[in-house]
Parts: sequence; structure tokens; C-alpha cells
Amino acid sequence: MSAYEKLEAHFRRAAHLDDAVGMLHWDMSTMMPAGGATARAEQMATLRGIRHHLIASPETSELLAAADAADGLNGWQSANLAEMRREHLHAAAVEDELIEALSKACSVCEMVWREARPESDFAKVLPSMQTVLDLYRQVAAAKAEAFGCSPYEALLDQWEPGGKTERIDAIFDDLAEFLPPFIDDVLAAQAKRPDPIAPDGPFPAEKQKALATKLMEVLGFEFERGRLDVSFHPFCGGATDDVRITTRWDEADFVEGLMAVLHETGHALYELGLPSDWRHQPVGKARGMTLHESQSLLMEMQACRTHEFLNFAAPLIRDAFDGAGPAFETENLYRHYTNVERSLIRTEADEVTYPTHVILRYRLERAMVAGELDLKDLPGAFNDGLEALLGIRPPDDRQGCLQDIHWYAGAWGYFPTYTLGAIAAAQFFDAAKRDVPDIVPGIAEGDFKPLVGWLRAHVHGLGSKLSTDELVAEATGKPLDQAVFKAHLTARYLG
Amino acid sequence: MSAYEKLEAHFRRAAHLDDAVGMLHWDMSTMMPAGGATARAEQMATLRGIRHHLIASPETSELLAAADAADGLNGWQSANLAEMRREHLHAAAVEDELIEALSKACSVCEMVWREARPESDFAKVLPSMQTVLDLYRQVAAAKAEAFGCSPYEALLDQWEPGGKTERIDAIFDDLAEFLPPFIDDVLAAQAKRPDPIAPDGPFPAEKQKALATKLMEVLGFEFERGRLDVSFHPFCGGATDDVRITTRWDEADFVEGLMAVLHETGHALYELGLPSDWRHQPVGKARGMTLHESQSLLMEMQACRTHEFLNFAAPLIRDAFDGAGPAFETENLYRHYTNVERSLIRTEADEVTYPTHVILRYRLERAMVAGELDLKDLPGAFNDGLEALLGIRPPDDRQGCLQDIHWYAGAWGYFPTYTLGAIAAAQFFDAAKRDVPDIVPGIAEGDFKPLVGWLRAHVHGLGSKLSTDELVAEATGKPLDQAVFKAHLTARYLG
Repeated sequence: MSAYEKLEAHFRRAAHLDDAVGMLHWDMSTMMPAGGATARAEQMATLRGIRHHLIASPETSELLAAADAADGLNGWQSANLAEMRREHLHAAAVEDELIEALSKACSVCEMVWREARPESDFAKVLPSMQTVLDLYRQVAAAKAEAFGCSPYEALLDQWEPGGKTERIDAIFDDLAEFLPPFIDDVLAAQAKRPDPIAPDGPFPAEKQKALATKLMEVLGFEFERGRLDVSFHPFCGGATDDVRITTRWDEADFVEGLMAVLHETGHALYELGLPSDWRHQPVGKARGMTLHESQSLLMEMQACRTHEFLNFAAPLIRDAFDGAGPAFETENLYRHYTNVERSLIRTEADEVTYPTHVILRYRLERAMVAGELDLKDLPGAFNDGLEALLGIRPPDDRQGCLQDIHWYAGAWGYFPTYTLGAIAAAQFFDAAKRDVPDIVPGIAEGDFKPLVGWLRAHVHGLGSKLSTDELVAEATGKPLDQAVFKAHLTARYLG
Repeated sequence: MSAYEKLEAHFRRAAHLDDAVGMLHWDMSTMMPAGGATARAEQMATLRGIRHHLIASPETSELLAAADAADGLNGWQSANLAEMRREHLHAAAVEDELIEALSKACSVCEMVWREARPESDFAKVLPSMQTVLDLYRQVAAAKAEAFGCSPYEALLDQWEPGGKTERIDAIFDDLAEFLPPFIDDVLAAQAKRPDPIAPDGPFPAEKQKALATKLMEVLGFEFERGRLDVSFHPFCGGATDDVRITTRWDEADFVEGLMAVLHETGHALYELGLPSDWRHQPVGKARGMTLHESQSLLMEMQACRTHEFLNFAAPLIRDAFDGAGPAFETENLYRHYTNVERSLIRTEADEVTYPTHVILRYRLERAMVAGELDLKDLPGAFNDGLEALLGIRPPDDRQGCLQDIHWYAGAWGYFPTYTLGAIAAAQFFDAAKRDVPDIVPGIAEGDFKPLVGWLRAHVHGLGSKLSTDELVAEATGKPLDQAVFKAHLTARYLG
């Protein structure tokens, strides 16, 4: 075996470990009884430690050096080798022990957060969160040195390879300037239209699940390679050829729960569409969270919150709940699905106000990682920040800095990818519609094949062969650019 | 850290890997979509390979040699070291590659068997089964050399440490002589009593689950440390502090499904009662499958198929299904739960005919491992053997050699522990009742604390500190001995 082939075998084992951790995490979030939490944290920490050791090892380092000199790799293999090198740099920068300590600290903190959030008790989770942050700052400092970037960028790179704060600042500063007056205008225009009518419930969970399952199939989800289950915080996880999405059902209101499933389905289609020839290799993975969020938001925001899709879905919704009358008409559903509101909870926010939630969190987590914001001051800074950006103030921490799982479960540097993803989604949908005229008529008939076909060719099937910007540029003609996103918002909300 | 302490850390990691494999296996059997099977097999093989490497490694070998010379270990620690040595011998005898190949072959074969069984198509699974057997014979030969025993005993030792065929032959030959005339007598006596009346169904799965859950709680199952789910083949699995039992619901008949849950609950109580001071250490594990089966059979056969328990359960059963009339009376339920029949399916067999199914499989698997029975001849040998032992002949392989998962999923050497467990169960229940007069009155009132308390003290809480025979002797005054089991059968069925 050549050095490169040995590396492929090596990274294949790492992928099996990643898959195993993915399943254990899914189970922890959906099935595990509370008593299993400590042992589960130990299982996951051990697997992550072994995975880390495998990639960080001197043997991997030597193989990478040997493969470097080797000739005859094709384009995919070269890209794979580059990804291997990036993963090795991430791993080798940090000791196994730190990785295991961090994994355990995150598991513990997530469990404490699950109690602290409903009680709105930030003080309860503060010590565990401090442990997580302290360990993350060690990781960030070590990786920053290895990559020659800032500590925050080193964390960002884990989610969005090559992500740079200068670039994000430019985009986010522009949006932070654009949005406040835009939101005013949208709310003024909306005030002149009738309010959406709430459909009468209750909407039993099993009926919502049956409807969601039907629409997941319409979008192209393959149930022989995945599942839909319930968790506290919706996510897309699982393993190779076994993609698990989750949601919560609110029996009083099906509207947002349904869209949450279509959002996660977008994530799942990316995973299910990755290049099967490169399964279990770094180049066969999703490129990063910006593209991942672009795929969920493309489905949820670009494709499914349209007249075309809602016109197709409305009779299915009526059938599912024995609904009738104006509340179940397309036009009323459209008003629900494009309703804009200054609201406190990020996951429930509309696409217009959403970036303000993200910009706030991005700025706060940068400050925390830089040591410029003490954790004890986070609740106040969060509330002040939201008030400044969106004009409303959380009355408690449950609706403030405790609302999201990310900082507690250890996803530092993740938040900006939501809005970068929204931007990419607008660019992809715009380009796809130009390339394939059948896409919009297809959506109107519940035929997502033209859209998913384009995504398979231009996004999913490329794995990590290109950088995010290269991929967006090849697919749409331009690298990541907020102009198309702003044009989309303007057309939909002030059109 | 001393060599011994290093070994504890080492084996703790192995236990986390075992837990992870336990969860992946549970998920595979209960939740996984079919498309995930290949990747899951790879995940499990990789984890098993890593686990194997950890225990087989020269480092472990050196630590064991160093710890050998060390003084000052207490009784638990010495027993732990002995178990470590046993695990190391098992692991070091076999190459990592063979372990991974075997894990994958078993996963593949189990999946093929899942299709072949309902189709009664032994030829379909024969090639995969041959692969599994060939690999197992390699494993058995290597381990036989390391342990200085026969190849079959080397496999048996994986499930029943220290198990010897000479001992099993003596017990099984005695039972094979005792049972045929005894079964004739029991059936003759039974023919003079009224037939059990079938309660009228249907019995919806969710009602059966609610009833089973209630009775699991009565027995002492802790739902904060475990779950009940559905799988094709009932089992008890999962991980530390997270014990997962499974069952199947037959909506036309609740009778045997309910008892299957109580059987698995017996397994679960053993796992949940293991010494928590020794969690994640070899000495903290269940001693072996003879004792494990003894705990399930003690609950199912000794405690729950009694007038006392059924008298307590009958009103709960009536409430669960809105049942009324003679079919739901204690006496009729007792007739169901002690009904003896010459039947084809082991898992549905009563406790009188059950050992004949086990003796057959034990003799067949010994012949297959010894290379004295070709796999292509297994169906005929199975049918001939059952006819000779029990007087009935399977009309097809679905009801013959395809009925059990064990040989296909790789549990060679497991079968004898069912009947050895039945024997131990009879001894334990007999001794417990003598020691604690409250046990039977407790069962009659749905209070299992006296019984479970005795089991915690004499079985569960001892982990692997003693050998099976030592433990049985300390708890009951005699090592494993079929006399009490035969006396139990005689008293219950000819009393």
C-alpha cells in the first residue's frame, strides 16, 4: 500500500468512529434515560479521544509527509489529502487528554443546561459553562498557533474551513446596517395587510408526524436511509447511510414545527447526496456548516415558504388535520410563513430578523473567546445586544442567553454559519432557477427532483472537493455575497 | 500509578467501547433503517477491533506481568486482575484482523438470516454462515491452544467462563434420559385437566406495553436507567446505567409476550444490580451467561409462573385489556403459563420441554465446531435430532435450524447456558425462599423487594468476583446441580 492508501485506511477508521459518536449523540438526545448520562459522556469522550489520537499520531504525520512527495494523485485524491492535512493539523495541535476532558465537560454542561434553561437559572450552568469555555480557549490558542490565525478563527475553522472574521465582519456589519430600517419598512408594509388567522387545533403529534413524513418524501428524503424522531432541540445527525433528523411537535400549532422538519430535511438531503465513491473519506464529507445551513435554509426559506409550495401543501395540510375554512387556505398559510416579527427566540425567528440574532451571538462569542467578556456578564450583554440590534429585550435568561444549546454543548464558532448559509441559499436558489426552468413548476406540483438534481450536481455531490467560496462561485458565478440575499428579502417582503 | 492502576484505566476504556458497541447493537435491532446496515457493521467492527487491540496489546501483557508480582491487592482487586488476565488471554490469542473480519461477517450473516428465516431458505444464508463458522473455527483453535482446552470449550468460555463439556455432558445426558418419560407423564396428567381458555383479543400493542411497564416496575426495573422497546428477537442489551430490554407484541395474544418481558427484566435486574464500585472493570461485570440466564429464568419461571404472582397480576391484566370472565381468572392464567406441549420453536417452549431444544443445539454446534457436521447437513441433522429428543419434526427450516439468531449472529457456545441457567435458577429460588420467608408472600402482593434484595446480596452485587460454581455454592450450599431443577419440575407439573 502507498502512503496515501494507508492514509485512506486510517481515515476510514476515523469515519467509523465519527459515525459511532453520531449515533451515540442521537441516542442521547432522543432515547437515552437520564441515568445513562454519565456513562454516555464517558463513552463519547473515549471514542473522541481514540479518534483524535488516530489522526494526531506521529504515524499519520509521517504518512502525510510521505504522501506529500508522492505523484499520481487525481483531483479528488489531492483534495482528500489536503483535507487529511487540515484534520491532522487540528488534531495534532491538541493533546488527547484535552480532547477527552472537553468532550466530558461539554456532555456535563449540556445536561446541566437542560435543567437550567426551563428554570431560567444562568447561575446554575455558569460553573460548567466556564469549564467548557476555559478548555475551548486552550484548544483555540493551540490551534491558532498551528494555523497561524486568531483563536476565534481556529474554532470557526472546525465548522467553516477557511472562515475568516474579516470577511464575516464585512458581511455582518453591512447586514447590521441594512436590517434595522428594512425591518421597520417590512413591519409597516405588513401592518397594512390582514393578520394571519391561526388554524384551530389541537394537532395531535402523530398526525403532524404523518404529514411531515409525507412532505419529507416529497422533498426526497429516503426513509430506508434515515429516520424522523423527537428531541428537545431539532437537529440532523446520525451516521453514514443512516441520517436521523429530529423535531418537536407543538400540539397547539403545527405551523412552525412542519417547517422545522423541512429545514432538517434540507440538511439530510445534503448528507444523503454526498459522493458515495468518497464515503468515509475527508473529501467525501459535507464541506462545512455554511453549506450545510445553506441546504436547510434553501429548502425551508427559499423553496418551501413560497406560494408555489404552499399551494401544493395546503390540501395535504387540510387532509392531515381535517382542516377547512380560510385558516387553511394557501394565502393565509403564506402569511404565516412569511410573517415578520421582532421576537426573542432565534430558532423561531423569521428570515428577516434572524441575522440580528446571529450577529449578536457571533460578536458575543468572539468576545468570550478573546477573554473580553466575562461569563458572569453574558446575560446582560446578551440582553443589551439584542435590544440594540432588534429593539426588544429578553425579560429573562431562558429567553436570552440560555435559549440556545451551542455554547453549552460546545459548538463555539458555529453561529455565523447560519447567516452565511442563508446568504449562500439565496445565491443557490437564484442560480438553480436560472439554470433549470423546471424547478419552480416542479415545486408547485410537489416534484422536487429538478431542484434536488441541481443541488446534487452543484453542491451535495462535490463533498469537500472545493472550498466554500469556490463551490459557491462555480455554482452561482460569484463567491459568497449578501447582495442576492438582500434582494431576495426585498422582493419577498417589500415586493 | 501502579501497574494495576494502569490496568484499571486500560480496562475502563475497553468498557466504554463495550458500552458503545452495546448501544450500536441495540439501535441496529430496534431503530436502524435497513440502508444503515453496511456502515453499522463497519462501525461495530472498528470498535471491536480497537477494543481487541487494547486488551491484546503487548503493553497490557507487560502490565499484567508487572501487576502479577505486586503485593497489596484486596480480594476484589485480585479477582479483577484474574479477570483481566482471562480477557487478555482471549484477546491475545487472536489477531485484530480476524476479530474485525468476524465482526463484519456476523453482521452480514445476521442481516441475510433476517431475510432467509421468514422465507425458510437455508440455502440463502448458508454461504454467509459458512464464513462465520470458518472464522469461528480459526478463533476457537487459537484460543484452545492459549487456554489448553478443546476448541468448543474455548468458545464456551467466552459466555460461560470455565465451562467444561465433560460437566455439561453429564448434566445434559441425565436430563436427556429424565425428560422423555417425564414429558409423557406430564402430558398425561395435563390431559385430565381442563384446557386453558384463550382470552379474547385483540390486545393493542400500546396496552400490552403499559401493562408490561407496570409489571417491570413491580419487579424493580428502574426506568431512569433503562428502556423497553420492540425488536424482532427479544434481548437485554444497552450500556452501563442504561439497560435496554426489547420484546415483540402479538396483538392476538398477550400471554407469552408478557412473560417474555418479565424474562428480560430478570436479565436487566442483574445488570442494574452489579457492584457500582466496580463499574467499568472486568470484576464488575455479570459473571457469565449461565448466571445471566438464571436471573431471567428465576423471574420468569420460578417467581412469575406461580399462583402467587398470577393472583396478584390477574386484576392488572383484566384492567389493562378490559377483560372479564373465566379466561382472565388466575387459575386459567396459571394453566396457560404452565401448559406443556411438544412444540417446534425454542423461544416459545415451556420449561419442561425447553432443555430438549438446548441439548439438541449444544450437540449440533459442538459437531459443527469440531468439523464433524457439514453445514449443508445441518437442516437434516436438526430435524432428526429434535425428533429423537422430543418426538416432533420441523416441517421446514424456518421452524427448524433457521429459527434462532445465535449461529448466524455469532453466538457459538452460548446455547448450553440456557439450561444451566434454568438449573441455577431453581437452586437460587429454592435457597432464597428458605433464607427469607417474606419472599413468597411478597410476590403474592407484588412486592419483589425481599426477592431482589436476596439476589442483590447473593448474585448481582458479586459481579465476577467468584466463579459460577463458587457463587452458586455460596448462595445455595451446592454447586450447579440438576436435582433441584428436576424436583421443581416434578413438584409443579406432577405435584
